[in-house]
Amino acid sequence: MTTSLEALRNMVLPAETTVAAAALLTRVRDAGPRVHCLTSPVAAGPSANALLAVGAVPSLSADAATVAEFVRGADALVVNLGMMDAAKAAAIDAATEAARASGRPWLLDPVMVERSESRARHAHDLLARRPAVVRGNAGEIATLALGADDPPADLARSWRCAVARTGREDVVTDGEATLRIANGSALMDRVTALGCAVSAVAGAFLAVAERPYDAAVAALLVAGIAGELAEARAHGPGSFAVAWLDALHAITADDVVRRSRVS
Amino acid sequence: MTTSLEALRNMVLPAETTVAAAALLTRVRDAGPRVHCLTSPVAAGPSANALLAVGAVPSLSADAATVAEFVRGADALVVNLGMMDAAKAAAIDAATEAARASGRPWLLDPVMVERSESRARHAHDLLARRPAVVRGNAGEIATLALGADDPPADLARSWRCAVARTGREDVVTDGEATLRIANGSALMDRVTALGCAVSAVAGAFLAVAERPYDAAVAALLVAGIAGELAEARAHGPGSFAVAWLDALHAITADDVVRRSRVS
Amino acid sequence: MTTSLEALRNMVLPAETTVAAAALLTRVRDAGPRVHCLTSPVAAGPSANALLAVGAVPSLSADAATVAEFVRGADALVVNLGMMDAAKAAAIDAATEAARASGRPWLLDPVMVERSESRARHAHDLLARRPAVVRGNAGEIATLALGADDPPADLARSWRCAVARTGREDVVTDGEATLRIANGSALMDRVTALGCAVSAVAGAFLAVAERPYDAAVAALLVAGIAGELAEARAHGPGSFAVAWLDALHAITADDVVRRSRVS
Repeated sequence: MTTSLEALRNMVLPAETTVAAAALLTRVRDAGPRVHCLTSPVAAGPSANALLAVGAVPSLSADAATVAEFVRGADALVVNLGMMDAAKAAAIDAATEAARASGRPWLLDPVMVERSESRARHAHDLLARRPAVVRGNAGEIATLALGADDPPADLARSWRCAVARTGREDVVTDGEATLRIANGSALMDRVTALGCAVSAVAGAFLAVAERPYDAAVAALLVAGIAGELAEARAHGPGSFAVAWLDALHAITADDVVRRSRVS
Repeated sequence: MTTSLEALRNMVLPAETTVAAAALLTRVRDAGPRVHCLTSPVAAGPSANALLAVGAVPSLSADAATVAEFVRGADALVVNLGMMDAAKAAAIDAATEAARASGRPWLLDPVMVERSESRARHAHDLLARRPAVVRGNAGEIATLALGADDPPADLARSWRCAVARTGREDVVTDGEATLRIANGSALMDRVTALGCAVSAVAGAFLAVAERPYDAAVAALLVAGIAGELAEARAHGPGSFAVAWLDALHAITADDVVRRSRVS
Repeated sequence: MTTSLEALRNMVLPAETTVAAAALLTRVRDAGPRVHCLTSPVAAGPSANALLAVGAVPSLSADAATVAEFVRGADALVVNLGMMDAAKAAAIDAATEAARASGRPWLLDPVMVERSESRARHAHDLLARRPAVVRGNAGEIATLALGADDPPADLARSWRCAVARTGREDVVTDGEATLRIANGSALMDRVTALGCAVSAVAGAFLAVAERPYDAAVAALLVAGIAGELAEARAHGPGSFAVAWLDALHAITADDVVRRSRVS
């Protein structure tokens, strides 16, 4: 946590944003933040591996009786609604309460809320617990925004959080500033839980950034550029998933500055 | 769902079967069917990734309280008995009931029924719920067939379903027609949950085929030929699993017609 | 189980230890032991794939009501405390009791006991059930040894088990003999659940070795040398994990003898 990184945080123009993102990547690698992920069985491995690759330290315990210990020992919390059941809902309740009480920032990934009314209601209840970042795809963000004209901005303003909507073009907004990110690979949609892994990576950036918006921007740039580096080595979705982890590990601050495509 | 595909469905001789299988692969890619998988933690990732690679869209929710929503929103259901417990049994009960009520075809994968009497009883109870396809290895199919001389055919006749028994040589039968498939790779047995992933792929074909038998044949041909393509690139079971997903994504209708080895 | 392997078991000097380890690898491949793993959702896939790669046969059922059937049908049991909850604790209780009653050796992997007091207490209770091997990293072993000067040796003596502490340098001890192993790769720490997979592999060796100490030594040598072989092919943690499975499958008895670095 150096003064120069503090200074970087106040930069807001796109060109400077990429420098800030690069600085945050360096900070993740230096700090090795602990990120607790309350995620689904299918997303646990990809999330933990993405965190390890980028330089963070994952934990995954999902038991309501003990999760608070893990959250208090972590620097950020990631909550993923995939494969929800009553036990996991209880763990999310305990974990988000521990995050609030101990001042840990947390990210909400509202997996498939457009496919289940009960899950959408649950996600809405969780918004009131003030996630710092919400990351989802177009359908998920639209469902949470309840039909607003500009779902990401509306959601960000309503709940005073950063919203990261991933897709062919990513959008990050805090309701005022908005950044569009053109980086990424079409193969990212052909690997299960890769979006969840991006949310986990955003948790690592959230642990070391002052503003959730900056964390979300940096995470999506790093994940998207890693996707491009991976696509260049991949023969299909299997080798892409492998190469993406390699790229998250190998990506440099210079890669982030030079390869970012933002508007 | 074109008329020519309807016509293909009525072809029954081996040579024509491979053309039908190729046509079903194209149909999966065009239609992108949703397949809900009630599977084990270890099989969730491989199953979802295989579905995404072949062009389908997986969902994995396993909560008895909400699984019916996911089944009704899907085009087919895959039920895998691996890592069974009471919560999963309740979800299977709700999911198979939702499949029946909404006319969704479903596949039963009776994982390791030869290792547990209670699981074997559970599998028998599920047969009465009329799966369209049962896919298992020799030990699993023999256990379900209760010692019949010709386990796959007996099981298919008893329960009026298609049975796909995978192994060194795959057998698909509906109790009348029977096809033997020589495609595949010995490395498929050295990757955990790869059989489960084949069942998931069969769910995608089940969603777009009129006859479960055709779906099972097409899925086993596609999976087996992808196994051969993968083996040619692999250095062992780790790289084989990766290359198999790449091959499921890359395999063409022409590959299916030219490389099928059936009798 | 040949007489010459029986003879190998009594060799204790480092040079001979590597020959014994190589012989145990051959025995695992010949015998194909069944290993039941009670593990976490994130470790299930890596554990099962490592067992398959090395030539063993995994099962993973984690239901208290039926796990005893699987343990009795297995040759060894591996218990991993990751992602603990009440249901898993009940399954561990049933499984370790079944292991005791049926004389199956079992291994305890005390995942992250240094992060949770309740988990540390649980691990202590399990030590009284006499695991043959405890495998953990420095923090986990120190937590179980309650601040002893020499945690692995103290733990081994207190509970009459073999202790394998993995890290930059691995240590295996039964409280009297101690071996230090310098094999391995720094990338092993950048892949989630790879330590758990090493524990699973140790379960396979435990099934075919007379002395738990020999099983632990052989497993750590095989896993570490496979790590070195994998690192030579890897571009980062993603491809390393893949190459490690390939190496577990390809590693020869000769590799073990020639590449072991022990003191």
